[in-house]
Amino acid sequence: MDMGLKMGFTYRIIKLGGSLITNKNIPYSYNEEIVRRIAREIRQFYPLIVIHGGGSFGHYEASKGDKIKTVIAMQELNLKIMKIFYNEGIKAFPLPGRFFSIDTVKRYLQEGLVPVIYGDITESGKIISGDDIAILLGKKFNSRVFFATDVDGVFINGRVAKEVNSPFIDDLSSSSFDVTGGMKAKIQKILENCVEALIFNGKIEGNIYKALEGKNIGTLVRCKNDNK
Amino acid sequence: MDMGLKMGFTYRIIKLGGSLITNKNIPYSYNEEIVRRIAREIRQFYPLIVIHGGGSFGHYEASKGDKIKTVIAMQELNLKIMKIFYNEGIKAFPLPGRFFSIDTVKRYLQEGLVPVIYGDITESGKIISGDDIAILLGKKFNSRVFFATDVDGVFINGRVAKEVNSPFIDDLSSSSFDVTGGMKAKIQKILENCVEALIFNGKIEGNIYKALEGKNIGTLVRCKNDNK
Repeated sequence: MDMGLKMGFTYRIIKLGGSLITNKNIPYSYNEEIVRRIAREIRQFYPLIVIHGGGSFGHYEASKGDKIKTVIAMQELNLKIMKIFYNEGIKAFPLPGRFFSIDTVKRYLQEGLVPVIYGDITESGKIISGDDIAILLGKKFNSRVFFATDVDGVFINGRVAKEVNSPFIDDLSSSSFDVTGGMKAKIQKILENCVEALIFNGKIEGNIYKALEGKNIGTLVRCKNDNK
Repeated sequence: MDMGLKMGFTYRIIKLGGSLITNKNIPYSYNEEIVRRIAREIRQFYPLIVIHGGGSFGHYEASKGDKIKTVIAMQELNLKIMKIFYNEGIKAFPLPGRFFSIDTVKRYLQEGLVPVIYGDITESGKIISGDDIAILLGKKFNSRVFFATDVDGVFINGRVAKEVNSPFIDDLSSSSFDVTGGMKAKIQKILENCVEALIFNGKIEGNIYKALEGKNIGTLVRCKNDNK
């Protein structure tokens, strides 16, 4: 935590990508071993805010357009994560994305808890993006946002860029088959909000710990005039 | 619904007791068959609001004083109920008690959904009572509240009372071993709020259907001057 504070982080905000914690190709497949390892890498950092995506649970159901199945799928995925986190000694408290507010997050933190927020869907079928929540938190708490994904970072000309400052990169691509433009959208949102974010591969053991410790693995995304 | 409307019910608000849907003596025991039957009895009534208790999930963990395990246990119990309700054709949408508000319930109803609200615990460890939520909803929506429990009603002198209008009954007792004074507290809250409530045995097949249809099975609890 010392290092974090020296670097100007008050809170560590980490988004666990849906493709990291689930196998996107198999509906309702959950990477329990990866979640357990993640829990062990993050539990020594505090204060901490965790956001997770939907992957082959919520993302899968949302793509089929059933809001009820989507909300249930996300509740199930979050429950699985909550149980692992609890067993690994993290004082996690769940926060469905549709009930997210900065005030609720602050209340959780004041109680010494780790908010575990998740991408969600509302009763009217509006998708609540975990990325959006992570970026909003980064802005409100003036903290770096850590995006643990299943790719090494942002690829430019076939190589992982150390830093990205502009969304206007023609040959921006990720190594995964990203039909939704997820990575591009992520970078655009980060830059639009002038938040500092690290996008890195959470599948590699130790990477999450390194990132939270302050090491610039993967790709650092930030606005050009941002001197954080 | 016709009958309900004639009787002045706009919404049917049903509280499923924790002792009905779980086995209170065995931690994390869930009465799946009972929940499935309940789903089949309630699904023909609409608009409908469901509230459920914690039983051997949340109630059990809360009694041990661990707020995180309590919140997780309730999330798990609710998930199990949500899955059954969905499979039985109920357009259920979950609402954790700690995020309950009348506005949220109205929004769910406007979307044609059945809010499934549950007794819960907040980040500060405050217990959110499903009974309190049910009674508040009864008041706000000016509707009878149906308490489906594991007892036949309110026992006075060893017999189920047809109607109870006063909380000042010395020998008030329920047939279950109620060390927490749950039934007394329930009746007091109902009368204090001048809400009309039917307390009946949901374990008996067909009872929930009969109650929702408007039959006065079990015990009707209401204030003396309440002519609803």
